Amino acid sequence: MNFTGAHILSTNQFQRQDVERIFAVADEMEPYALRKKVTRVLEGAILGNMFFEASTRTRVSFGSAFNLLGGEVRETAGFENSALVKGESLQDTARILSGFSDVICMRHPVAGSVADFASASRVPVLNGGDGANEHPTQALLDLYTIRRELAGTGGRSIDGLKIAMIGDLRHGRTVHSLGRLLSLYDNIEVVLISPEELTLPPSIIEHMRSAGAKVSISHELTNSIRDVDIVYSTRIQEERFTSKEDADLYRGKFRLNQAIYTEFCQPNTVIMHPLPRDSRADANELDSDLDDNPNLAIFRQADNGVVVRMALFALVLDVADKIHEFSYDVRWYNSRQV
Amino acid sequence: MNFTGAHILSTNQFQRQDVERIFAVADEMEPYALRKKVTRVLEGAILGNMFFEASTRTRVSFGSAFNLLGGEVRETAGFENSALVKGESLQDTARILSGFSDVICMRHPVAGSVADFASASRVPVLNGGDGANEHPTQALLDLYTIRRELAGTGGRSIDGLKIAMIGDLRHGRTVHSLGRLLSLYDNIEVVLISPEELTLPPSIIEHMRSAGAKVSISHELTNSIRDVDIVYSTRIQEERFTSKEDADLYRGKFRLNQAIYTEFCQPNTVIMHPLPRDSRADANELDSDLDDNPNLAIFRQADNGVVVRMALFALVLDVADKIHEFSYDVRWYNSRQV
Amino acid sequence: MNFTGAHILSTNQFQRQDVERIFAVADEMEPYALRKKVTRVLEGAILGNMFFEASTRTRVSFGSAFNLLGGEVRETAGFENSALVKGESLQDTARILSGFSDVICMRHPVAGSVADFASASRVPVLNGGDGANEHPTQALLDLYTIRRELAGTGGRSIDGLKIAMIGDLRHGRTVHSLGRLLSLYDNIEVVLISPEELTLPPSIIEHMRSAGAKVSISHELTNSIRDVDIVYSTRIQEERFTSKEDADLYRGKFRLNQAIYTEFCQPNTVIMHPLPRDSRADANELDSDLDDNPNLAIFRQADNGVVVRMALFALVLDVADKIHEFSYDVRWYNSRQV
Repeated sequence: MNFTGAHILSTNQFQRQDVERIFAVADEMEPYALRKKVTRVLEGAILGNMFFEASTRTRVSFGSAFNLLGGEVRETAGFENSALVKGESLQDTARILSGFSDVICMRHPVAGSVADFASASRVPVLNGGDGANEHPTQALLDLYTIRRELAGTGGRSIDGLKIAMIGDLRHGRTVHSLGRLLSLYDNIEVVLISPEELTLPPSIIEHMRSAGAKVSISHELTNSIRDVDIVYSTRIQEERFTSKEDADLYRGKFRLNQAIYTEFCQPNTVIMHPLPRDSRADANELDSDLDDNPNLAIFRQADNGVVVRMALFALVLDVADKIHEFSYDVRWYNSRQV
Repeated sequence: MNFTGAHILSTNQFQRQDVERIFAVADEMEPYALRKKVTRVLEGAILGNMFFEASTRTRVSFGSAFNLLGGEVRETAGFENSALVKGESLQDTARILSGFSDVICMRHPVAGSVADFASASRVPVLNGGDGANEHPTQALLDLYTIRRELAGTGGRSIDGLKIAMIGDLRHGRTVHSLGRLLSLYDNIEVVLISPEELTLPPSIIEHMRSAGAKVSISHELTNSIRDVDIVYSTRIQEERFTSKEDADLYRGKFRLNQAIYTEFCQPNTVIMHPLPRDSRADANELDSDLDDNPNLAIFRQADNGVVVRMALFALVLDVADKIHEFSYDVRWYNSRQV
Repeated sequence: MNFTGAHILSTNQFQRQDVERIFAVADEMEPYALRKKVTRVLEGAILGNMFFEASTRTRVSFGSAFNLLGGEVRETAGFENSALVKGESLQDTARILSGFSDVICMRHPVAGSVADFASASRVPVLNGGDGANEHPTQALLDLYTIRRELAGTGGRSIDGLKIAMIGDLRHGRTVHSLGRLLSLYDNIEVVLISPEELTLPPSIIEHMRSAGAKVSISHELTNSIRDVDIVYSTRIQEERFTSKEDADLYRGKFRLNQAIYTEFCQPNTVIMHPLPRDSRADANELDSDLDDNPNLAIFRQADNGVVVRMALFALVLDVADKIHEFSYDVRWYNSRQV
């Protein structure tokens, strides 16, 4: 695909070569994200960070990524107060807000709303999550994490990957999107571990199988994670259930801790989670005794969100090859370097 | 007036030459707003964007305008949490907040509050809307739009303008302010089209008439827009009525669509609206079938808000003649140019 | 202490020499805070301004301080929407958010939470207030104000200071923290003026006495302020009482106005208040007829928050000696200069 000026709305837009282009640019962003260097390539550009549904970390991650390229951020962080409640169409909102910025990131609670918005926007729109539908940057940062973690431990590649997806696979849009992206690669093996009522939607299983992936379904944890490269755990999406009590039925069913990891996993099995992990006693899907495990990749995963989002901004605004030209060394104390 | 260091609180401050000075500076802002060029003239300056009443678009428009001049924005977006609820006077708030920035834009639900605030501020204050009282930047961007649209279609000027104002003329503060500004020009003719209960306040009609404008009142749409240069439509200001049911009595009375436009308007009649337009079926004051009409100026009108606000910032901070000195070409992909 | 990379969590961290180092750097920030000069030393750096409890002025003061050093600000302004409600631990939040910025300022309603957060953060954390526990930058700006005001009126120094603290000394965390900081100095005399039920906690009185301060307790205003250098008034912290009615019992007990000042204070007694002052008729602890009194330091006190916070950022990021290197003259109209 041609990234310049494009909207980033769905993982379905990408071919394998597109994903690899994004990842190559993300690799180049690392010195900036680690605050070894500063680039000012987007000095004067404005991101409209339009979160019509609250999300501190995704909003701040997008905003920081844009700041790290030298740009400014104008934002909104809630639905109630927008003109939408005065009867304005999303297309009108898009025509107006796109006059205020060079690129827009949008989150909205309604599935399909971000694509609607993008159809009337005069600047590129990045989907920051539209309800239960898509969250493409999360899927990209997950796959980028898989790629880096595998390369770091034994030089494995994504082709031939064996991954276990665990938890609320029905409601978790991150596993849906990741499933689609993995279908771009060869010899993928996926083990789906969930309560029977919370398994992955059949359409996504079908999509993966028709792309050649081997997909198996399990309702048991320990024996299903014996020989996987990646354990991808998720939280019960309580907000998608009809009641807290209903969600409680499924919480804490598939807990991973260091003892289970030691007994059942391979020594270099990588542990991932889209975060937030639910650390309350009745959930605790990833125990805090894993925090010293070097294969716990969940915080590197969150960090990778910044470089992947920087890469997307650089690509849609066509500055990927000018990043270094406008750069200099960081002048302040950098605690990450120590 | 001398703009340097001045508060911008009301349309009553301006003489015709002041308005024309603002518009001349706004014209110079266009290459920056269109992202052809970047200026860093206000690099290091801070705007305090204090919205004590929510408004996504006006808040973001002010913030983006300041960013486009190279400055930073600190902001607040709600009333509940401010120190005002702990019994602090607006004057105290102003003395404190004006220590944090170089210029302040303020919106507040109480009429007169922004002027109160300005009286104790040590930096220039721009009124971003104080209840039903004033919203001077909206009136300026409306008049700037009229000037540009008329000049673009046949080289007409504001002197001699015939304009129809339609809808909730009683509560819509934008038409009040625009009425006052139009009084600065010669041979203006205004047709007020509203339900009888929602007509323009007599004081404003009197103000226009004593300035020489010809003002007529109508309760019917089609025959009243036959020979006007501008149709200025507004939404029913539901939030100013005692109940939704009360507002419903007046909604959808004066709808304009392409068929009516073709039959009754002149071929170059310009259509304006302060936005948001209410696109719900029971309101729909400007039908979406007008969206392809080249004389529909509503989105150009919103865009004009950015250059007008840039001009006001440049004037009160006295950098209008230094904009180009600190400029360079945009480095990134500009979707507006295509 | 070594400031580079340090967390600033509590006034207990500081020795006298540390406080004086902060104040020396703050002095150097004045030309930048007064907009005589601009520095870009932190251009490219990001502050994560994480306010999990609302506070317009403290949040904007931190953000402006960082902008004045050339850095960018990403922020959040409320608790409800954070991942904490999905069961995430503060440590997880810290690991993630610290990947998005170079330094974090955090306010949180729970005592001890900011230290918890800091323990897992990879970047320096500044405590912006954790419940009733600590608010170290407020104490520093108070002491900085005392130092400047005393130096300005007769060249007095903090050693030998006599200060009256007035009002709700039980709940006001600012007087708690200021009490601890004053203990670093010699020959301090403190007069505590409050209702009997709202006196300073015994632990803080004990702390001051064991450091050599002379502490007396009074329940009467006028005769207790006869020979003090500083009158430090505070508001009744209504939000810490069980009901408004309970707070009402104590409101307005110790009002200072110009008549009382003239009759009982010394001619150069300085009036301070952590703000907001409650100006409602039933409270009115500092009457507005004091606003023309040159010794009313409350607005200079708020302004001093900016330079003290700039100093802390400069110290923890180790750029205090590079500020001037990246500076230039302000290009815009500066209303503070007039």
